[in-house]
Amino acid sequence: MSDNTKQASNAMWGGRFESGPSAVMEKINASIGFDKRFYRHDIMGSKAHCAMLVRQGILSEDDGRAIIDGLDQVLQEIEDGRFEFKTELEDIHMNVEARLAEIIGEPAGRLHTARSRNDQVATDFRLWTRDALDEIDRGLEALQRALIAQAEAHAETVMPGFTHLQAAQPITFGHHMMAYVEMIGRDRGRFGDCRTRLNECPLGAAALAGTSFPIDRHATAELLGFDRPCANSLDAVSDRDFALEFLSAASICAIHLSRLAEEMVIWTTAQFAFVKLSDGYTTGSSIMPQKRNPDAAELVRAKAGRVIGDLNSLLIVMKGLPLAYSKDMQDDKEPVFEAYDTLELCIAAMTGMITDLRVNSERCRESASAGFTTATDMADWLVRELNMPFRRAHHVAGSLVKLAETKGCDLPDLTLAEMQSIEPGITAAAMAVLTVEASVRSRTSFGGTAPDNVRAAAHAARDVFLAGGPTIDEDGSA
Amino acid sequence: MSDNTKQASNAMWGGRFESGPSAVMEKINASIGFDKRFYRHDIMGSKAHCAMLVRQGILSEDDGRAIIDGLDQVLQEIEDGRFEFKTELEDIHMNVEARLAEIIGEPAGRLHTARSRNDQVATDFRLWTRDALDEIDRGLEALQRALIAQAEAHAETVMPGFTHLQAAQPITFGHHMMAYVEMIGRDRGRFGDCRTRLNECPLGAAALAGTSFPIDRHATAELLGFDRPCANSLDAVSDRDFALEFLSAASICAIHLSRLAEEMVIWTTAQFAFVKLSDGYTTGSSIMPQKRNPDAAELVRAKAGRVIGDLNSLLIVMKGLPLAYSKDMQDDKEPVFEAYDTLELCIAAMTGMITDLRVNSERCRESASAGFTTATDMADWLVRELNMPFRRAHHVAGSLVKLAETKGCDLPDLTLAEMQSIEPGITAAAMAVLTVEASVRSRTSFGGTAPDNVRAAAHAARDVFLAGGPTIDEDGSA
Amino acid sequence: MSDNTKQASNAMWGGRFESGPSAVMEKINASIGFDKRFYRHDIMGSKAHCAMLVRQGILSEDDGRAIIDGLDQVLQEIEDGRFEFKTELEDIHMNVEARLAEIIGEPAGRLHTARSRNDQVATDFRLWTRDALDEIDRGLEALQRALIAQAEAHAETVMPGFTHLQAAQPITFGHHMMAYVEMIGRDRGRFGDCRTRLNECPLGAAALAGTSFPIDRHATAELLGFDRPCANSLDAVSDRDFALEFLSAASICAIHLSRLAEEMVIWTTAQFAFVKLSDGYTTGSSIMPQKRNPDAAELVRAKAGRVIGDLNSLLIVMKGLPLAYSKDMQDDKEPVFEAYDTLELCIAAMTGMITDLRVNSERCRESASAGFTTATDMADWLVRELNMPFRRAHHVAGSLVKLAETKGCDLPDLTLAEMQSIEPGITAAAMAVLTVEASVRSRTSFGGTAPDNVRAAAHAARDVFLAGGPTIDEDGSA
Amino acid sequence: MSDNTKQASNAMWGGRFESGPSAVMEKINASIGFDKRFYRHDIMGSKAHCAMLVRQGILSEDDGRAIIDGLDQVLQEIEDGRFEFKTELEDIHMNVEARLAEIIGEPAGRLHTARSRNDQVATDFRLWTRDALDEIDRGLEALQRALIAQAEAHAETVMPGFTHLQAAQPITFGHHMMAYVEMIGRDRGRFGDCRTRLNECPLGAAALAGTSFPIDRHATAELLGFDRPCANSLDAVSDRDFALEFLSAASICAIHLSRLAEEMVIWTTAQFAFVKLSDGYTTGSSIMPQKRNPDAAELVRAKAGRVIGDLNSLLIVMKGLPLAYSKDMQDDKEPVFEAYDTLELCIAAMTGMITDLRVNSERCRESASAGFTTATDMADWLVRELNMPFRRAHHVAGSLVKLAETKGCDLPDLTLAEMQSIEPGITAAAMAVLTVEASVRSRTSFGGTAPDNVRAAAHAARDVFLAGGPTIDEDGSA
Repeated sequence: MSDNTKQASNAMWGGRFESGPSAVMEKINASIGFDKRFYRHDIMGSKAHCAMLVRQGILSEDDGRAIIDGLDQVLQEIEDGRFEFKTELEDIHMNVEARLAEIIGEPAGRLHTARSRNDQVATDFRLWTRDALDEIDRGLEALQRALIAQAEAHAETVMPGFTHLQAAQPITFGHHMMAYVEMIGRDRGRFGDCRTRLNECPLGAAALAGTSFPIDRHATAELLGFDRPCANSLDAVSDRDFALEFLSAASICAIHLSRLAEEMVIWTTAQFAFVKLSDGYTTGSSIMPQKRNPDAAELVRAKAGRVIGDLNSLLIVMKGLPLAYSKDMQDDKEPVFEAYDTLELCIAAMTGMITDLRVNSERCRESASAGFTTATDMADWLVRELNMPFRRAHHVAGSLVKLAETKGCDLPDLTLAEMQSIEPGITAAAMAVLTVEASVRSRTSFGGTAPDNVRAAAHAARDVFLAGGPTIDEDGSA
Repeated sequence: MSDNTKQASNAMWGGRFESGPSAVMEKINASIGFDKRFYRHDIMGSKAHCAMLVRQGILSEDDGRAIIDGLDQVLQEIEDGRFEFKTELEDIHMNVEARLAEIIGEPAGRLHTARSRNDQVATDFRLWTRDALDEIDRGLEALQRALIAQAEAHAETVMPGFTHLQAAQPITFGHHMMAYVEMIGRDRGRFGDCRTRLNECPLGAAALAGTSFPIDRHATAELLGFDRPCANSLDAVSDRDFALEFLSAASICAIHLSRLAEEMVIWTTAQFAFVKLSDGYTTGSSIMPQKRNPDAAELVRAKAGRVIGDLNSLLIVMKGLPLAYSKDMQDDKEPVFEAYDTLELCIAAMTGMITDLRVNSERCRESASAGFTTATDMADWLVRELNMPFRRAHHVAGSLVKLAETKGCDLPDLTLAEMQSIEPGITAAAMAVLTVEASVRSRTSFGGTAPDNVRAAAHAARDVFLAGGPTIDEDGSA
Repeated sequence: MSDNTKQASNAMWGGRFESGPSAVMEKINASIGFDKRFYRHDIMGSKAHCAMLVRQGILSEDDGRAIIDGLDQVLQEIEDGRFEFKTELEDIHMNVEARLAEIIGEPAGRLHTARSRNDQVATDFRLWTRDALDEIDRGLEALQRALIAQAEAHAETVMPGFTHLQAAQPITFGHHMMAYVEMIGRDRGRFGDCRTRLNECPLGAAALAGTSFPIDRHATAELLGFDRPCANSLDAVSDRDFALEFLSAASICAIHLSRLAEEMVIWTTAQFAFVKLSDGYTTGSSIMPQKRNPDAAELVRAKAGRVIGDLNSLLIVMKGLPLAYSKDMQDDKEPVFEAYDTLELCIAAMTGMITDLRVNSERCRESASAGFTTATDMADWLVRELNMPFRRAHHVAGSLVKLAETKGCDLPDLTLAEMQSIEPGITAAAMAVLTVEASVRSRTSFGGTAPDNVRAAAHAARDVFLAGGPTIDEDGSA
Repeated sequence: MSDNTKQASNAMWGGRFESGPSAVMEKINASIGFDKRFYRHDIMGSKAHCAMLVRQGILSEDDGRAIIDGLDQVLQEIEDGRFEFKTELEDIHMNVEARLAEIIGEPAGRLHTARSRNDQVATDFRLWTRDALDEIDRGLEALQRALIAQAEAHAETVMPGFTHLQAAQPITFGHHMMAYVEMIGRDRGRFGDCRTRLNECPLGAAALAGTSFPIDRHATAELLGFDRPCANSLDAVSDRDFALEFLSAASICAIHLSRLAEEMVIWTTAQFAFVKLSDGYTTGSSIMPQKRNPDAAELVRAKAGRVIGDLNSLLIVMKGLPLAYSKDMQDDKEPVFEAYDTLELCIAAMTGMITDLRVNSERCRESASAGFTTATDMADWLVRELNMPFRRAHHVAGSLVKLAETKGCDLPDLTLAEMQSIEPGITAAAMAVLTVEASVRSRTSFGGTAPDNVRAAAHAARDVFLAGGPTIDEDGSA
């Protein structure tokens, strides 16, 4: 293109793409900028494919050995930072193969027998995602460990249990922590199911139709740790379910983290002051030394937005896409990478915050006592001891509260006589249920907030969720 | 409020809310408009709770019997359409309990012992979703059955396999159908995992903290077909994972349906004309009788948007919500109901379309033959028979195609001599691989498109996916 | 279909669609269930079209008169609730036209000259959306009125200004209210721009290509209050920008409401107790009379999720849709209807909450004074009076705060000598800037929080935003 | 932290964060990695702030000059690539200020008088977005220019107009192009409205409450090209409407591009073959030389997903965020940057594709003639010439089509006698309307597809949309 044409052409693009069509196309088309992250899995896949080709007699032993050695060298070069990725080679597959050809010559050209980039990238992406899932599982286990440690340390710490962010009934801080242990447990279950379902090998599906070479897909699958080969070659190269399922599980997990993060933000306000975050996860202000901004918690809360945005992106990309491979599917990786990096970071930050968390037990207890939070306990006593129907007991308790409110005192401050003026059947024994400690101690139904329940639940959770990790003492130290 | 005040007040709201605050609050607050859909599950839950209370001695046998009989009567009234739902009673729980009180009097007030609306609605919602999952599983099985029948009927029908919507290699129509059988199989797996994970019983978590009554949550759980009670009472009333997981699985499933729908739209154009949809799933035009608009397919494609929107809604609602119950969570039901209704309808429509689908085999074959789609087969032959490295074989095949293009003929129309002018090693045997039939027959690698593979895959899929349903013959009839 | 076939067929659909294909198709295809909401706009459009046809001599005066009268009768029947909508007539257009034919006979068949359902529905939808935009504008104006009234009533009420939900500097409650007046003002601007852009008339685009009849599209446009006809017939029937733009503006507006709602939830906690919501917008608990759950605020917060979900839905539906009309576009209405109904309700609820809001001024002031929130004022004094570089002044103020913290007192409680021990230049005059009242009074920069600024801003906002409405006194009464 | 502690701590984070809390916090907290993109706007804002401080006598002339010169030097260092960005300085503001202090010493500490990072980042972000909007407007104008050129070149080229992707009526290719000119025109309008609304200056809002310094916010606003200062300091630092509105407009624009991209993908299939994309925007296959994969079009289609994901992300981040600044808002930049880069690239790629597009006019015409696409023209003739009611004319035309279909011919191939056997009033004149050329020529209603209309529309569009650019001749050359 002459310079004049180029100038004219530039005028056509407008904007920033000064070098005309080729620059635009190269920028929109090349994937090496992000898919180089697959290098390890790409080489792993090629080695397995090569080994299988040799075993099936499709490749000679000599060629096979040259290829394996060459691939190992490429891997080493990349890990040493000596490898030069080239945009004009478009993607990780061509970058690796081109370098292999430089190193070993002709046999490099035999590696691509009975495969294509379509099944190759699908394999790389599954292998990478499998590793990501394992990494996240480790992170979530660490978070559960931190939560359980806090639960054990605060099995007896009374705090208000909220509904509508209004104090409703006393609970224990440990019980609150254990709620998140359950959520994270389900998250791990979802990631685990995703791992099981993705663990099928696309390799050998070739471009889309399978191949006429006598390959052994079961062998390749086994070499790569897959449970089996994908059953349909079209599906193998067109499917991105595993990425969507990963993003779904990540979104739900990010929701859980955002809920805990919101509680951290609220609980660290001067008005609540239930907990104190460590310096490591807050920022200060040189001018207002008491200020301890819960930046990490706010960011964890925000980043749920990012992860959900990533899920949404890929759902939209895949919607209405005809089989088999369409170039649209190249846009599958960045959302997954971004969601993974974001979630990993959020899990680590939350684990750190929970580990370092200092609970202000006095403040929690004080908040729990305000607002007649044991009125339900009174109602339950009336049902249990006087055999009142619950709806009437509920009404009597309400009248007692109104009396206390009129007198400007709390429920336990009413005299027995005052109580009997509302309901003659009330005895001194009833008074015992009105403290917040008695309240939480009485909630011994399975899954309830009683300290013994919390301790038992924490113990059980260690067995179910923590893989032989060291028990952490109640003071939080290992 | 005087009429004058009312008018002034109306001016304040602006807009449509003419009756002032109470009307606005009632409209935004009441859930009976949609949660009445839970009536059967609400009553089922109450009956189980009641039976457990009796067994634990918390409720007398007489009261228990009265309650059970009363609930049965309420159920009957609702199913007979004789029940009057009242908005001022806000939700399904209060509507049922209020009617129960009318029928049986005082014992009705004892039913609410050791529970609250928080655990009650969580239980209802799980029971409902469990049924919805079972219903969807039945629908998806029917769709797989229809796809497998078409796969068997068209195991030998050759069509172009596309990448980038450009013909790439010949495949069989049956193989294409089987790709969707795989996708739907994974969808069923995801819905199944969701069902397993949701199958824990919140009942007995009470408002949020558990209860001091000696209830047996394991018993209630068992009576309602749950695998176990939820392990943490806070989590039990605050968790909506099962709804989010349901919506995630539904979104991915909707994506699959949208892909098949897009193919229906493209394949039924005059330009493609691969298939014909039945009258039942198209609309005509009185003026253009040849026109057969694929409305159902277009709507299935569109409705993925709705389902993803529902998922997005609930993720946003749950993000950053502190424990335990917040009123925001009332907005959990409508997205799930809408996604379920939409997905059910899409599955049924797609099942109908596939069942009725007529394939234009000649047109498919003709399209598959155009565009040198067997060039890869030639390259594979060169590798296999002449031991060429794949990359060189690929180059030779390209030269052959260029020659054919110059001559204005197709690959199989080249003479042996012409071929040998490019690569002397080519023999007459090579000619055999160049027909589309030979091409698909050769793709016998596991998961490949060869007719025998397709038949075997369909057979295997019947075993794996179809629960003892009647085998449908290749002509599509049962 | 025989009953046997029907049963077999039912087995194929699985699930709930018992009557086979026709039932499924009818359910997925018919739009009358929701588009009947257009009845008024549909008839208005037909009347304008008819008038234009008569004026252009395409329709006789007699036929024109018959049609207009007939349409008026149909309108009356619908508004009287005497009209029977029929699903088999699919949509509002056919329902109206079929009834018109019953009433006036043959001339009804002339109305559809030079138009089609494609331009008709596009016109209906634009007319409906235009009305919706006007309705929302009225609602938002009422909300601004309520906010401004609170701003004026609390121009001097000091509260903490938060960053990271940690108290940072004192502000006035009125200033906080005025921030939302600005946001809502921008929302109205966005809705207004949407209205301007949508106000082009699709009628006369016919099916997609325009028409050969000598119609006058400018006349029809004018009769319907449009600024001009759409300039391209394909675009006129394929475009749903106005719906997407409406949903975008609604989403951003819902975000604003959700932010204010979150503040209501936090401010009404026992721990903050800044404000009290009225009974009209809270729910109580018969057993905990002090409990005042901010249900309406929570629901407004949640419903941002719904509106964003609706936006997302329609974006997904429209993505990648070829021109001109595709049936997918039938899924455009429900998201818009739902978002409109939701937003209207949220605006009304928020207007009510703000109107009724009671501010606890003592509590707000007390909270504002805690935490050295005037340290910045000290730093500014040092810059202003001692000409210190800001960064150094910032450091000195920090040291003063540390001293106060050590002494367990607040900044204004330090003696002048103590202050001078840190920075000798400090004079008695500096003490005056350390009260929260002095702090807010000093923030007189344009847009600052000083009471006079707030009053001026409220006054200006009345002029800019409120259309000649009655001024509301500071006590909130009109 | 000792190495032992560190190791223990690492075990706690699990996963990739090997160096414990500080590494996690630094990674999640620092924004310099992306906000350095603001460097030019940050310095521009500081210079304006400084100039105003001098003018108001808050800063001395000497200090002012030193600061301005120092900032210019920092700018130069950054643009020369000699500036070292430091993560420990967190963000662009501190990086610039720290370097300024190195260069000019003490006066650097005076620059931050009467401002804070909160108003500073809000200003930077608005300035950056304003430039981005201008850049996009230029890109969209170039795209309109390319579309108009194709419209003029193909004002007479007949192609099928589709509904449901089924041929419905003949249109001209130019008319189809002009539909996109309209869409892009509205996009430019939306971006323009966004620009107008964002063009208010936050600077001087300081942390959140304004300042006590006698600053002149109107002056700063004017120096930076803003229309006015933001009216409320809280709103000024908490508002991200401009980012949300930008993302909304970008999403709708991406939808338009995705629709055109989908048409490119469909039109370039072998089955349609309406158009040919240039080598610059397709990828080939060395083995299938006829293959020309529309990669750029597929990627443009896909990337709508990314942009919508970005919009969704930021909406979620902002939902329910209390005033004023929360750290969550740091997650506002990356979605906007990503959406901008993506959209710019898509616009440039689409402009290139359209500019280079080759239309296969014969194929288009042939497709337009098939399928009785002029049946509506026949019906219109019957209405116009025989005064039939449209509904009856529609019925007659349908009968003629049925006759032609029976005879296996097209509509224009029927003899007059055959036509009169259906409707005796038909004359020879009717035959003239049945060719596709006659059909498009007759659609002369405003906005219709007639060639003269298209030429007039293109001419008008040049005046409205193109800023004095060179007219491009019909053959596509400049």
